[in-house]
Amino acid sequence: MSGIHEQLLNAIEQEHGALLATQITGERPGAKLLVLDDGHVAGELFPAELHDQVRADAGRLLNSGEATTRSYQVGDEQIDVYIESHLPPRRMVVVGAVHTAIHLVTFAKEFDCHTTVVDAREMFATRERFPHADELHVGWPDEIMPDLNLGPQTDIVMLAHDPKFEDPAMEVALNSRAGYIGAMGSKSTSADRNERLKARGFSDEQIARIHGPIGLNLGGKTPPEIALSIMAEIVAVRRGKDPRGSQSPVKPAKADQ
Amino acid sequence: MSGIHEQLLNAIEQEHGALLATQITGERPGAKLLVLDDGHVAGELFPAELHDQVRADAGRLLNSGEATTRSYQVGDEQIDVYIESHLPPRRMVVVGAVHTAIHLVTFAKEFDCHTTVVDAREMFATRERFPHADELHVGWPDEIMPDLNLGPQTDIVMLAHDPKFEDPAMEVALNSRAGYIGAMGSKSTSADRNERLKARGFSDEQIARIHGPIGLNLGGKTPPEIALSIMAEIVAVRRGKDPRGSQSPVKPAKADQ
Repeated sequence: MSGIHEQLLNAIEQEHGALLATQITGERPGAKLLVLDDGHVAGELFPAELHDQVRADAGRLLNSGEATTRSYQVGDEQIDVYIESHLPPRRMVVVGAVHTAIHLVTFAKEFDCHTTVVDAREMFATRERFPHADELHVGWPDEIMPDLNLGPQTDIVMLAHDPKFEDPAMEVALNSRAGYIGAMGSKSTSADRNERLKARGFSDEQIARIHGPIGLNLGGKTPPEIALSIMAEIVAVRRGKDPRGSQSPVKPAKADQ
Repeated sequence: MSGIHEQLLNAIEQEHGALLATQITGERPGAKLLVLDDGHVAGELFPAELHDQVRADAGRLLNSGEATTRSYQVGDEQIDVYIESHLPPRRMVVVGAVHTAIHLVTFAKEFDCHTTVVDAREMFATRERFPHADELHVGWPDEIMPDLNLGPQTDIVMLAHDPKFEDPAMEVALNSRAGYIGAMGSKSTSADRNERLKARGFSDEQIARIHGPIGLNLGGKTPPEIALSIMAEIVAVRRGKDPRGSQSPVKPAKADQ
């Protein structure tokens, strides 16, 4: 069993998502199953039918961030399993310390998101402009980003609007496991960048990860409006409502609270 | 001329939107035209053809918040007109000092919006919870709201989730000139409230002003997610992209910056 806990701690440290299921009743109370977001599996529940049922639920439960006890029907028996999802911390990396970035960091902080702003231009990436960012780096984004732990819980937002900074940074982003990648720019700017990435050997599938033009189209033009449209797109994508994919992207809410 | 400036100052004081057009060249430099958001018109430009052209543009320019010089073609002549739009300050009134309201006030402040939170429950409407609100009122919303200057630039957001507070407050909202009215609640909660408002004599057209269920459906469930979906709906409505009206409400952005 200790092997499983070590693997769980390792996974959390490396900012992997992890699901730990502990059998409470039935044949083997205390039996554990660990499933990581990279597909790694360790441990076993009993009988095999219970194991398979929990495995089948694991993908969905992995991103819930919740701890809950669930009952599984195995033959005539109800078996209780305690399931806890360990989500890595939310992170946002903003490339380009522009005005829109100031508002975006404010919005991201409301989501308890760890924020990092990167820009090679000293005049922009200042503590006066970004007192609220968790990290502020002056330097070339492609040199700094590899050290930022770009996992599935990371949003990468490119606002620099200059291929000189963004193309190398985008290569780092596409080679990472970041859960959201978005880039400011018109449709033609985005198409041009995609062509350059193709020429550098990236596949259509890899390039399709980029949300560009970034943000939901709320009709806004000011920096806070643009920042809000980006944050709204990130929430929609994180909640499985990617506005690019579905036929009727974002509808009036049904949510009650 | 002094009459027009007095009227402009009055309009600004009463938080009306106002457009002031000053003729720079042509027949009568210095001639002025004032158009208010309630349809009031004062002054005159010359010739009448110029006057009519500027009048025709006034509705659109009124909400621009910009000051600009425009050239009008009048017969063979180009006449320059300096046009300034005076928008009243943005205001948000939140009824219900719930958790979502805390995040919503943070978001609204990024838009330089004056924020007021109202709740009859002393335990909720505290400065500890709302250090960032411009105004915080403990009391019955329908008694407090009439003093809050609910003009076209005001967003009214009902989060109290209790007909006891919200029905009387909604009557005040519907009798105001507020530019956005939204209310938390499921579809059936919203339908029930609408029935009660009808029974109180409100027309379908009046009731159609209410955005309920409130917010864009981004799939979010947490208080910051709900607050963001509300702020996103407000931006969309203010920018003429009311997601209830159009066929394809909110699409990926085309905006460049």
